Amino acid sequence: MVDADKFYSELGRSQKPGVLTKVVLAAVELMKQGKKIISMTGGSYDPSSVPYKQIKEIIAGTPTEEWQEILQYGAASGKMELRREISGFMAGHGITADPKGEIIVTSGSQQALDLVSRVFLNPGDVILVGSPTYLAALGAFKQYNPELRSVVVDGDGMSVEALEVELNRIEAEGKWAKLLYVVPSFQNPTGSMLTKERRRRVLELAEEHDFLVLEDNAYGYINFGGEMPTPIKGLDRTGRVMYTSTFSKIVSPGLRIGWLAGSREFIGKIVEAKGKVNICNDGVTQYIAAELFRRGDVEKQIPMITRVYRRKRDLMLEAMETSFPEEAEWKEPKGGLFLWVSLPERVDATEMLTESLNRGVAYVPGSNFFAEPVHNYIRLNYSFPSEPDIVEGIQILGGLLKEKL
Amino acid sequence: MVDADKFYSELGRSQKPGVLTKVVLAAVELMKQGKKIISMTGGSYDPSSVPYKQIKEIIAGTPTEEWQEILQYGAASGKMELRREISGFMAGHGITADPKGEIIVTSGSQQALDLVSRVFLNPGDVILVGSPTYLAALGAFKQYNPELRSVVVDGDGMSVEALEVELNRIEAEGKWAKLLYVVPSFQNPTGSMLTKERRRRVLELAEEHDFLVLEDNAYGYINFGGEMPTPIKGLDRTGRVMYTSTFSKIVSPGLRIGWLAGSREFIGKIVEAKGKVNICNDGVTQYIAAELFRRGDVEKQIPMITRVYRRKRDLMLEAMETSFPEEAEWKEPKGGLFLWVSLPERVDATEMLTESLNRGVAYVPGSNFFAEPVHNYIRLNYSFPSEPDIVEGIQILGGLLKEKL
Repeated sequence: MVDADKFYSELGRSQKPGVLTKVVLAAVELMKQGKKIISMTGGSYDPSSVPYKQIKEIIAGTPTEEWQEILQYGAASGKMELRREISGFMAGHGITADPKGEIIVTSGSQQALDLVSRVFLNPGDVILVGSPTYLAALGAFKQYNPELRSVVVDGDGMSVEALEVELNRIEAEGKWAKLLYVVPSFQNPTGSMLTKERRRRVLELAEEHDFLVLEDNAYGYINFGGEMPTPIKGLDRTGRVMYTSTFSKIVSPGLRIGWLAGSREFIGKIVEAKGKVNICNDGVTQYIAAELFRRGDVEKQIPMITRVYRRKRDLMLEAMETSFPEEAEWKEPKGGLFLWVSLPERVDATEMLTESLNRGVAYVPGSNFFAEPVHNYIRLNYSFPSEPDIVEGIQILGGLLKEKL
Repeated sequence: MVDADKFYSELGRSQKPGVLTKVVLAAVELMKQGKKIISMTGGSYDPSSVPYKQIKEIIAGTPTEEWQEILQYGAASGKMELRREISGFMAGHGITADPKGEIIVTSGSQQALDLVSRVFLNPGDVILVGSPTYLAALGAFKQYNPELRSVVVDGDGMSVEALEVELNRIEAEGKWAKLLYVVPSFQNPTGSMLTKERRRRVLELAEEHDFLVLEDNAYGYINFGGEMPTPIKGLDRTGRVMYTSTFSKIVSPGLRIGWLAGSREFIGKIVEAKGKVNICNDGVTQYIAAELFRRGDVEKQIPMITRVYRRKRDLMLEAMETSFPEEAEWKEPKGGLFLWVSLPERVDATEMLTESLNRGVAYVPGSNFFAEPVHNYIRLNYSFPSEPDIVEGIQILGGLLKEKL
């Protein structure tokens, strides 16, 4: 056989199974042995709430002449009808973007993160991320060997004071911060909401220090009732903010529909880059997505799924109150899919995962959300597990935590 | 507004509208002015042959319990049922690949080309390509700044004598050829078929000179009746050949279903890389694809679409015989979707395109299929245009060519 290692690129050699892969594989192994595993890991959709009836109706009602276009190659920027619907949807949430030139449909928002990384990141470029931040965004960025600089995230989202300190430090080093990645609404993993004032300040700092902002709004539409500040993109007047969102949390992750909105100039480059990586998005799914918007299904699905997630969040909080030890701390998330639990520093949540899996509960160790080594956090997902499993899983995890403390 | 150019990566800055984008945009402009344009450009599907009835049946018959999985996140390697079907399909064409670990489902074969490039190509790595070869493969490779070395393609596919000469030249320069990209069956753009003997020789040379082979078989299933030699992957015993194919030419380009088969070791790395670029393929499309295989629709669609393309090829050849000038030369393609026309060296087919568009015919200038500058070829597609348009388009193009000669 060939000596495989001889052939890899640096990027290829660096590919190792990610934490979710490892957790899932470990869980699958145990399940093969007949063990029940309650998964509180990824941001999966509530299984019983997927809008399959609407999708069946849409396909059944698709006019014959449409199919010739649906099953043919499409534009790298995405199906025009879908871009129009996305533009209208964003307009209802404070963002103006011309479907013709300022929006690209992507294969989930993950592809938007990868395309932005390709088009903007050279090795060594300085990019700013939250501490903690979305693990798969770190995964996308790291492919391009940037210098990641962390900015602390507190209960009101990313600290703009810490951001300014970091920017000055970077400039004092004779370097330049090129891009800030931020998840302002119901941030993953902390669930925090970046305040209106901080959003304005982030944009001021972006203009003063001349960096781009990549705003990831995967969770903002899952809002348990609070007021929703305007997205940073909605405040941008200089074309330095790119905004990505996705169907994954509001409609279905399996449809792989995400999008990126930005200046005509930037989107133009990104469309060319997309053509080289997968030519265009799937036609059937884009047609389904456009119809789900047009028929009003998306606007109906969002409040429905939000009620489901709110009930599951409440159930998880209640169970944590009764089962978790004193020393464990968390804030009530006002939206999104995750609960972020802080443990005493002596607890290593990464080590604890094996024991937790053996007892039947899977979670994501907090260490994966930091660019720097931090081990005393766990992220719990409440969107996927069933209500009885939430209660059972939290009891198991609570018992384990009490033993550790 | 921001100074956009300041922010691009090298890769981002290099993104320019590709030739197909340019041709299509120019055609769209003319069509807006009410002009009819006959497109003989991309490898699009025959519009009236798309299997939409089968897809509607599949969706209508999908069991409710399936939808929870279809609309959820899936494995980065692809839906297991689909990998099993792909494995069975390849087994019928001389390739053995374990669905568990040796196959990954990709977003069209374009994503397979991009993922292989990511995982194997460092800047400056030497890769061998046909002269001419598939333009979008060149586009995928060039993203990673390799050194492209050309090997002449004749009527029997890539010349193994020229390949050996090039390999020795590369080694004499103290360099190492890491990868060979080859389209053995009905090569794009020439339509040539790599002979059985040459396939064996390519593999011998790969073992002697220790390079990997990326075998692209997008067109081999569109066979007008000749004997089909075993794929190079089917002859490989050392795990150095990766094989990619796609639904785009046999079922539908819009479904964005491609796949890559290779050693467990290589596919493992590529699966990790895919997770970072778009997490997984679309669930609805993967389910449709698995069902199209399982129901036998794919095996029925291939001979049906092959008959359609054969008839269109015959029509185009007939029209060329009567309308094209003496000096234009071409071979009858025994399969695939393209006709490759050689013109006297004094004709610049790239320049001629504008005039051709003005007269109502779009084609792809041959220059785009060479790593080096060559201008006296045109590639004509016969799968997309209607039969009357084929006749009319060839007459227009023939008239233009006669004026130029």
